[in-house]
Amino acid sequence: MKAVILAAGFGRRMGEKPKGLLKVGGREIIYRNMKLMEENGVDEFIIVTNRQYEGNFKDFLKRSGFKGKVLVNEDPERGNGYSLHIAKEHVNGKFVLLMSDHIFSKEFLEAAITREGAIIDGNPEFVDIREATKVKVENGSVADIGKGLEEWDGVDTGFFILDENIFRVAEELVTKKERVGMSDIVRKAKLKVSYISGLFWMDIDTPEDLKRARHFLIRNSIKGAGDGFVSRYFNRKISTRISELLVERITPNQMTVITFAMGILSAFVVFFSPSLGGVLYQISSILDGVDGEIARASMRTSRFGGYLDSIMDRYVDFAFLLSLAVVHGGATSFWIWTLLAIFGSFMVSYSTERYKAAYGKDVYKRIPKMRYLIGKRDERIFLTMIMILVGWVYALFVVLALITHLRVLATIYLIKKNMED
Amino acid sequence: MKAVILAAGFGRRMGEKPKGLLKVGGREIIYRNMKLMEENGVDEFIIVTNRQYEGNFKDFLKRSGFKGKVLVNEDPERGNGYSLHIAKEHVNGKFVLLMSDHIFSKEFLEAAITREGAIIDGNPEFVDIREATKVKVENGSVADIGKGLEEWDGVDTGFFILDENIFRVAEELVTKKERVGMSDIVRKAKLKVSYISGLFWMDIDTPEDLKRARHFLIRNSIKGAGDGFVSRYFNRKISTRISELLVERITPNQMTVITFAMGILSAFVVFFSPSLGGVLYQISSILDGVDGEIARASMRTSRFGGYLDSIMDRYVDFAFLLSLAVVHGGATSFWIWTLLAIFGSFMVSYSTERYKAAYGKDVYKRIPKMRYLIGKRDERIFLTMIMILVGWVYALFVVLALITHLRVLATIYLIKKNMED
Repeated sequence: MKAVILAAGFGRRMGEKPKGLLKVGGREIIYRNMKLMEENGVDEFIIVTNRQYEGNFKDFLKRSGFKGKVLVNEDPERGNGYSLHIAKEHVNGKFVLLMSDHIFSKEFLEAAITREGAIIDGNPEFVDIREATKVKVENGSVADIGKGLEEWDGVDTGFFILDENIFRVAEELVTKKERVGMSDIVRKAKLKVSYISGLFWMDIDTPEDLKRARHFLIRNSIKGAGDGFVSRYFNRKISTRISELLVERITPNQMTVITFAMGILSAFVVFFSPSLGGVLYQISSILDGVDGEIARASMRTSRFGGYLDSIMDRYVDFAFLLSLAVVHGGATSFWIWTLLAIFGSFMVSYSTERYKAAYGKDVYKRIPKMRYLIGKRDERIFLTMIMILVGWVYALFVVLALITHLRVLATIYLIKKNMED
Repeated sequence: MKAVILAAGFGRRMGEKPKGLLKVGGREIIYRNMKLMEENGVDEFIIVTNRQYEGNFKDFLKRSGFKGKVLVNEDPERGNGYSLHIAKEHVNGKFVLLMSDHIFSKEFLEAAITREGAIIDGNPEFVDIREATKVKVENGSVADIGKGLEEWDGVDTGFFILDENIFRVAEELVTKKERVGMSDIVRKAKLKVSYISGLFWMDIDTPEDLKRARHFLIRNSIKGAGDGFVSRYFNRKISTRISELLVERITPNQMTVITFAMGILSAFVVFFSPSLGGVLYQISSILDGVDGEIARASMRTSRFGGYLDSIMDRYVDFAFLLSLAVVHGGATSFWIWTLLAIFGSFMVSYSTERYKAAYGKDVYKRIPKMRYLIGKRDERIFLTMIMILVGWVYALFVVLALITHLRVLATIYLIKKNMED
């Protein structure tokens, strides 16, 4: 399947820039949409723009490696319906049509690409209703469309699944009228309507819109399945704010290294001030969410990134607890508890990762009850900080040892109970 | 595709038993073949046997859950060609024909099922040539077949891919002759020949054959990819002998528990005699291969079994090194080395299992160089035993710490170098 992307507008409210090439969360808007479409079976892209922005889009295509071409609408003032008309000779059969300045979530796009006609949102949560193009539906088709409709059933999402028939309607209008909007074509074609409601999409008209989109992408990038209570109700609130600030300034791998350095630093600081070390350790735990959030929001996830992050987390935990044990010191019994606590902390991670190695699936997704087991890293680190602050270091090792090994036992039990083989 | 299994012989040299139902490596011969065929697309089985064994095979079908039926050859003395003739109305199109008393390796069966005609072996390694049915090939087809051929190109493996045409030939012979062997049909049909050479298969005629088959199945059940030098050149030589003895007497999970108990016992014995503890630890390392060998040889592998085995290995290693450290005792610096050694041992396993969780593949298969990195469990345990025996316990922890963490670094480096993303 091919996709036509209408990008002939001048983006005047964004300071005369091709809006599709604006970056949100570290990636151009059209990169995001094209990448998601590619993952869902679209293999060629036709971008219709104006003469002025032609070079920008050609550069983009070359840089990003997508298969496609750039067509020029020499008279962009004739409207985006006229831009569609220009693509006529370049598509056949079913194709996707979308606006270059609309941003769609993965969930929206995956659903939309399987539907037909005009995709409309009956319950738009992320757009300014006053600015939106409303659609009145009758018998499953567009009865009327426009910004000023009093009565409407949904909002035009700027995403369509069409076929060649649309070009006959476009042709007819283009020969009769000077200015032809997509709305004119949709109204005249009485396009079929498909509802996709409540999933994230929005159009970018102002710098304020860009910020809102970034905010959403970061919020939506929380993986979550393996998050403990501390992470869910505390760490993530802070890490997402940091991610919003950094997503366009730093790569996920750089962030992984910074977080690792922060964790190792916290272990060193323990020798001078265990309390300060504990606080820094908790800060490193908050930062630990940022690399993943940035990676997912900017479509830069890599398996190696996740791998390295896991290994480094283990080393940070080891370094911190080792420092703490050395500073505290004690008899053989103290060292036994230390060993049990450190070993238990690893076994928590090992017992879940090893599940994924064996079964190929995330244990938290397969066995939702696992989410309620305490002892995850974010919880252990928070507990560590608190117990250092109140001065109970020996007790900390005992508690960590008990929690972690009980958790491993519970994990084995739950897997055994839920297993297929 | 369907499969016809000829099982009308009386198994006189095995003491009048249905040979197909004899167990090798804990599974009936025909169970093994049917299971492998099922995994390769065969969905229905037709077993032709004699009146006396009908009940045995019907029981087997019910017990094992395979889809299929049992046909009776009322006159088994008329030969196995006559048995094939009986299946005539029950198959159509392409089908597999095999002898019930032949055992085939997974590799042989996977290759054979994609070929056509009579599958013959140009280089039979596992059968007694004097007893084998030889085939003379001309222009890719059977020219002659028989035990006594002077000149031959390959040996009949008892495995055929046929279609309905074979029944016309069978019919013709059956009406003319009293006794019709498969060889008569194959010769007359001038069957096409496909060579599969050097892969394991054999027919079971005597109790001695059964032993040889078991020996092969155990030897072939070594997973190997993650084995270190000690395992390859020492532990496996012993564990396979133990597996041969136990495969029909114990389940893999029972063996996992016994091995775990042995490992924990070795950790306790350290308190009375570190040397004896070290030897027992090495014995538990040898036993650690047995559960997997038995599971694979008896087609009883389970993901949970592998999972539990991994978790238990970690606990055994921890228990042993902890006991050793407690018995030795020492200043803070000693405990630091102990922690580094235990943590490092853990990270060796974590860094390979985490790879599988991230990439879905075995790191030793994907990155063969990984096999040459020392520090695998079998090597660490062997080293531990040796160093305890010569009395260098402190040095042992230092060496373990260095080897394991260097190995983790090398693992990360190799993965980074070989990674796709």
